[in-house]
Amino acid sequence: MSAAHLTWLDGAPATALPLPDRGFSFGDGLFETLLIRGGRALFLDLHLLRFQYGCARLFLPDCTDRLQRDILAFCASLPPEHHWAALRATVTRGAGPRGYAPPPEPAPRIVLEATPLARDCLVQLPPARLVEAQHTVPLQPSLAGIKHLNRLDQVLIAREARSAAADDALVYDSAGRLVSSGNANVFLVIGGELHTPLLEDAGITGTRRQLVCHEWASALGLDVRIGVLDRGHVQRSAALFLTNSLVGVRAVGQLGERTFEDHSIARRLFAEYARSCG
Amino acid sequence: MSAAHLTWLDGAPATALPLPDRGFSFGDGLFETLLIRGGRALFLDLHLLRFQYGCARLFLPDCTDRLQRDILAFCASLPPEHHWAALRATVTRGAGPRGYAPPPEPAPRIVLEATPLARDCLVQLPPARLVEAQHTVPLQPSLAGIKHLNRLDQVLIAREARSAAADDALVYDSAGRLVSSGNANVFLVIGGELHTPLLEDAGITGTRRQLVCHEWASALGLDVRIGVLDRGHVQRSAALFLTNSLVGVRAVGQLGERTFEDHSIARRLFAEYARSCG
Repeated sequence: MSAAHLTWLDGAPATALPLPDRGFSFGDGLFETLLIRGGRALFLDLHLLRFQYGCARLFLPDCTDRLQRDILAFCASLPPEHHWAALRATVTRGAGPRGYAPPPEPAPRIVLEATPLARDCLVQLPPARLVEAQHTVPLQPSLAGIKHLNRLDQVLIAREARSAAADDALVYDSAGRLVSSGNANVFLVIGGELHTPLLEDAGITGTRRQLVCHEWASALGLDVRIGVLDRGHVQRSAALFLTNSLVGVRAVGQLGERTFEDHSIARRLFAEYARSCG
Repeated sequence: MSAAHLTWLDGAPATALPLPDRGFSFGDGLFETLLIRGGRALFLDLHLLRFQYGCARLFLPDCTDRLQRDILAFCASLPPEHHWAALRATVTRGAGPRGYAPPPEPAPRIVLEATPLARDCLVQLPPARLVEAQHTVPLQPSLAGIKHLNRLDQVLIAREARSAAADDALVYDSAGRLVSSGNANVFLVIGGELHTPLLEDAGITGTRRQLVCHEWASALGLDVRIGVLDRGHVQRSAALFLTNSLVGVRAVGQLGERTFEDHSIARRLFAEYARSCG
C-alpha cells in the first residue's frame, strides 16, 4: 500500500491488526465509510447513529463515543494531501477464544484507514454507466440495513461490474426486488416523484439516502416514497441516481443498453448536498 | 491471547495481519478448520479440495499448493502441547486499493492459527444439548457450500445457543429447511436410514459429512440420503448427530424439550471415524 494510506489502531498509528481478531476471522464487526474534507468527517453524526444501531443489532458493546473520539483525533492528524480523503472506520469484536461464540466481555478494536481522494468532491461526478448485476443478494432481515463486515456479495457484484467495464451494477435481491447498486443507494424518478427501496430484507441504509429522503428532496419540493420496487419500476423510471458518502449524488447515464438524458434532479440534489457540506 | 495460540503469516511466525487486508475489510476469503494430531493435519486432502473449490467460486487465485506447503511446515513446527490442536487456516484476497472491487492481480495471504485442545479427540464427546435457533440463515446459492469468511450468521447463532446454555443450535434457512447446527453438519436417523441436508442454498459441505456419506455409513451398512429436510423430518427422527472436523461425530442428546436415548449409530460412526484417523 502507498504511504498515503494512513492507518490507526485503537487511537494510535499502526500498520497491522493483532491476531486473532474476530473481524478477520468471521467479519464480526461493522464499518463506516466517511468523506473527509480539510480534516473534518462530513455528516459524522449520521454515520455514528448508524454505527450505534449496528452495535445493538450485532450485540456489540456500544463504543460510539470512543469511535467518535478516535475519528476526530485521526482526522485532525491527517496531512494536507488528505484534504479530500476516504476514511474507512472498522470496528471489530476484537480478540476472542477459538470458535464462533462471541466472548462474554468483548474488547472491540477500532481501525481507521484514510486514503486521499485526488479530486474536488464538491464537483459532481459524470453520470455513471451501470449494468444489471446477475449476482443477487439474499434476504436476511437480521443483517439488513447495517454496515457489517460480511461483504462478499458486494465483492462479487463489483467484480461483475468491472468485467462489464461498467462503473457499478444495479442489484436485486433473490426475490427480484431492487436493493441498491454495488456501492450506493439508488433512487428512481417516476412521474416526478422519487422512489427508493425499503431495505428491510437486504442492503444498507446510507447516510446520503437518509439526507435525500428527509432534507434534500423536500428542499427541492420533491416527494420521496420508500417502498418495494422491482424491475418494472426501473423500466418505468425517467431517471435514476445513486447516493453514497463519497460521491454524494450521482446520476445514472446508462443502464445496460438504455441511456438516460435528463439528469436535472440529480444535479439539483447534488447542489443541495454541496450546500449541506458547508 | 495465550502464548499457546501460535500464528503464521505467509509461511513465517507472526502476531499481526498487515493492513489493508480484504479479509479484514470485507470477509473476502476462505478458511478451513483442521484437527491436528501429533503434527499432522487429519484429512488434509479433503480440506484442500474444498478450499480449491472455494477459490474457484470466489474467483480467488488457486493457492492450494501454497496452502498445503504452509500447513505441512506449520504442523511440523508445533510444540508437544499442540499434540491435539485446532488449526485455523485463513486465506484472504490480500491487500488492495479502496473499495469492493477485487484487484486484477490479487496476492492472497495465508494465516495459520493453532490452538491446543486439552482432550483426547479419539474419545467421543458426550451427547450435545441443542436448541432450535431462532436466527435463520439466508438462501444464497452463490456462496453456499464453501467455507468463506462471512460468518455473522454463525456468530449470532452461537450467541443464541450460549444464551440458552446449550452446546449448539439447530439451524434452518429462511425457507424453513434444515441446514446444519451452528458449527457442524447434521444427520437425522429416520427409519434406520441417515438423512442430511442438500446444502445447495446455505450451509457448508463439511469434510466429515462427506466421509459419513461416502465411507463411514456404508462401512456400517447404512444408507445416506441427501435431500431437502424440514422440521417434520426432525420431529420424525429417532436420533440426530453432528459432524465436524474437531468433534468427528457427536450424538445429539437433547433438542429443546426432547431427549434422545439411542446413540448407537453415532457411536458406531465415531468408531469408523477414529479408525480413519489412523
